[in-house]
Amino acid sequence: MTIIVQKFGGTSLGNIDRLQAAADRVIATRAEGHDVVVVVSAMGGETDRFINLAHQLQSQPAPREYAMLLSTGEQASAALLAMALQAKDQAAKSYAASQVRILTDASHQKARILGIETEVIQSDLAEGRVVIVAGFQGVNEVGEITTLGRGGSDATAVALAAVLKAAECQIFTDVEGVYTADPRVIPEARLIESISFSEMMALSSLGAKVVQARAVELAAKHDIPVRVLSSLQAGKGTLIHCAEQRLGQPAITGITSHAKVLWITLQSERQDLMSCLQALTAEKIAVDLIQSAVSKNRLSFSIIAADRSKLDAVLKLFENINIDVQSDLAKVSLIGIGLQGNGEVLAILLSSLGQADVNVHQLSVSERDISCLLPKQQLQCAMSTLHTTFGLGEG
Amino acid sequence: MTIIVQKFGGTSLGNIDRLQAAADRVIATRAEGHDVVVVVSAMGGETDRFINLAHQLQSQPAPREYAMLLSTGEQASAALLAMALQAKDQAAKSYAASQVRILTDASHQKARILGIETEVIQSDLAEGRVVIVAGFQGVNEVGEITTLGRGGSDATAVALAAVLKAAECQIFTDVEGVYTADPRVIPEARLIESISFSEMMALSSLGAKVVQARAVELAAKHDIPVRVLSSLQAGKGTLIHCAEQRLGQPAITGITSHAKVLWITLQSERQDLMSCLQALTAEKIAVDLIQSAVSKNRLSFSIIAADRSKLDAVLKLFENINIDVQSDLAKVSLIGIGLQGNGEVLAILLSSLGQADVNVHQLSVSERDISCLLPKQQLQCAMSTLHTTFGLGEG
Repeated sequence: MTIIVQKFGGTSLGNIDRLQAAADRVIATRAEGHDVVVVVSAMGGETDRFINLAHQLQSQPAPREYAMLLSTGEQASAALLAMALQAKDQAAKSYAASQVRILTDASHQKARILGIETEVIQSDLAEGRVVIVAGFQGVNEVGEITTLGRGGSDATAVALAAVLKAAECQIFTDVEGVYTADPRVIPEARLIESISFSEMMALSSLGAKVVQARAVELAAKHDIPVRVLSSLQAGKGTLIHCAEQRLGQPAITGITSHAKVLWITLQSERQDLMSCLQALTAEKIAVDLIQSAVSKNRLSFSIIAADRSKLDAVLKLFENINIDVQSDLAKVSLIGIGLQGNGEVLAILLSSLGQADVNVHQLSVSERDISCLLPKQQLQCAMSTLHTTFGLGEG
Repeated sequence: MTIIVQKFGGTSLGNIDRLQAAADRVIATRAEGHDVVVVVSAMGGETDRFINLAHQLQSQPAPREYAMLLSTGEQASAALLAMALQAKDQAAKSYAASQVRILTDASHQKARILGIETEVIQSDLAEGRVVIVAGFQGVNEVGEITTLGRGGSDATAVALAAVLKAAECQIFTDVEGVYTADPRVIPEARLIESISFSEMMALSSLGAKVVQARAVELAAKHDIPVRVLSSLQAGKGTLIHCAEQRLGQPAITGITSHAKVLWITLQSERQDLMSCLQALTAEKIAVDLIQSAVSKNRLSFSIIAADRSKLDAVLKLFENINIDVQSDLAKVSLIGIGLQGNGEVLAILLSSLGQADVNVHQLSVSERDISCLLPKQQLQCAMSTLHTTFGLGEG
């Protein structure tokens, strides 16, 4: 029998009705002839409640204890889903990550999965049970609980799919799949039926929040087809897989955006600037669209606004650096394949934005994306223009 | 250094302020020169919330999954208390029961502790840390989570105190200690400074809910002094210990009661009645005050009203038994030492209740208690009369 791994997020488990709907999905998948392994997030709102409690006690909660606390949310929903399945006469067992030994590195907050023991899972499946594993968590070598970082349940699901050689990893969420652009912003946005790993990675890391970027990376590495679909509506969702490289013409897949971006300019000695850049990278601040002019002792780049406090913390260590911050910016990215070195796409992009009076502040081009910094108030116009220009609503 | 085990119940951890107050208590105990191991219950209300969720999914939640679910409550409060301590510059580490291997039998809901590994705890203590262990839970031989039954955190605390050879096990609760009677019923009730294990066991099993009966049993077995005290107020509480047997005169310690008791009379063939009695015992229904007249094919006994549905379930299996139920009864118990065969105490009890016009329906006498069944509406009068007659308010 083929194995399907199904991951249900917090909103898909937010109340008794949704827990039961998730159980029905699992049972329907088994009825199609598959063994099912389920990965669950904490019930909607639980993680935030814990975070709030922790921060009332300690401004910087100790990572080890924070992981102990947060991981209970997923364990609880795993047990509840098992009960929902049993109430529908489907045998099921829930497991905390430590019980199926999802071994991670020592990091308590953004741990990476090193291995998973599959014996217990395989033997449960062989006996006709659904296996439910608490997502987002692992256990390190000394038996301490670790967490995989926010959205980490996606990584748990893909890692399980990889070690179990699953036919597909299904990520159930509150949207119908991956769209050519955010449908709340661009009403003509179209559901993408199929997308390659590399395009999806570009979409994930540039702001589309449907699937955690690290999970897509992991799926690509192990060649596990990932399907994103709605837990609330029927539909085939979006299949993310190892698509054949489309040759010749560049292919545009979709548009993604960040609504709040800062343009940072640092001025100092070249050596200070380089040390600072290293420190920013070490703190995992995504430094983007770098436009360095180091001969003039100046370094400019964009960051997402949410990283501002981390940036300030790093800059405190560099007394000799002057900083200038331009806010009120947004970023729009056109995602596709074969974009680098393709003057035609770039020309169409720039001329269409120009005709729409969008003022492009900065531009970067890579193989998978063309990204523009622009005034925040022009973001919607830019997205809409690009969506129409590149025919993304046409299917 | 001597080790003190401190157990904080749900109300003592019910919000951020109380978590911090608990942390202060722990730090104060360390300042007195002790190593401290803490056992925590789930935050007040959490367990009931989980129970409610589970019962919405399944009328009889599967014990394995139920234990998975409920145990998360204690793990969360353990982590939160560790954060509260760290925020006050006291190093601390929290552990789920599986991490310090609180090994239990296979029962998921009323498991018994078989052993605890102390290496990790001892090494943390040696390094100056406070060790916090999630109460109420254990792990069975195959690594599944088990729970010790309601109030089981007391048992965790005593078991830890035993294996760590602690000087004292302190149970922090929302009352100041053990009283000669329920102070809400008898205003003159006095806090007991010191009580023997056997008297406390009689008090616990006959209705006083301050400490779980099994925990007192365990403490007696390992001779661990247990102190019950308030987490909200200062005070020395009540020390439960291996008191010297008071010789000669019987000693009266206190009064306890059950407000709702049923008097059951079964009529059938002798053999059916005996099989039924065995079945009731097997279902752990506390059959009390047995007054059998089996020659007449009749068996009478009292049970607490809460056990009624369990009784009915058992009786369904015996078609030939007629049942008569007298409700509206209560039970009052005088607790002490040397009560059996002591006509004087019994005579004083009966004459004082007679003078107060209390109608004693049934009576039983053991070494540690004299219990009377009486009409529910006379309970308060009976308690008050006995409390005065035996001078319990006088200290």
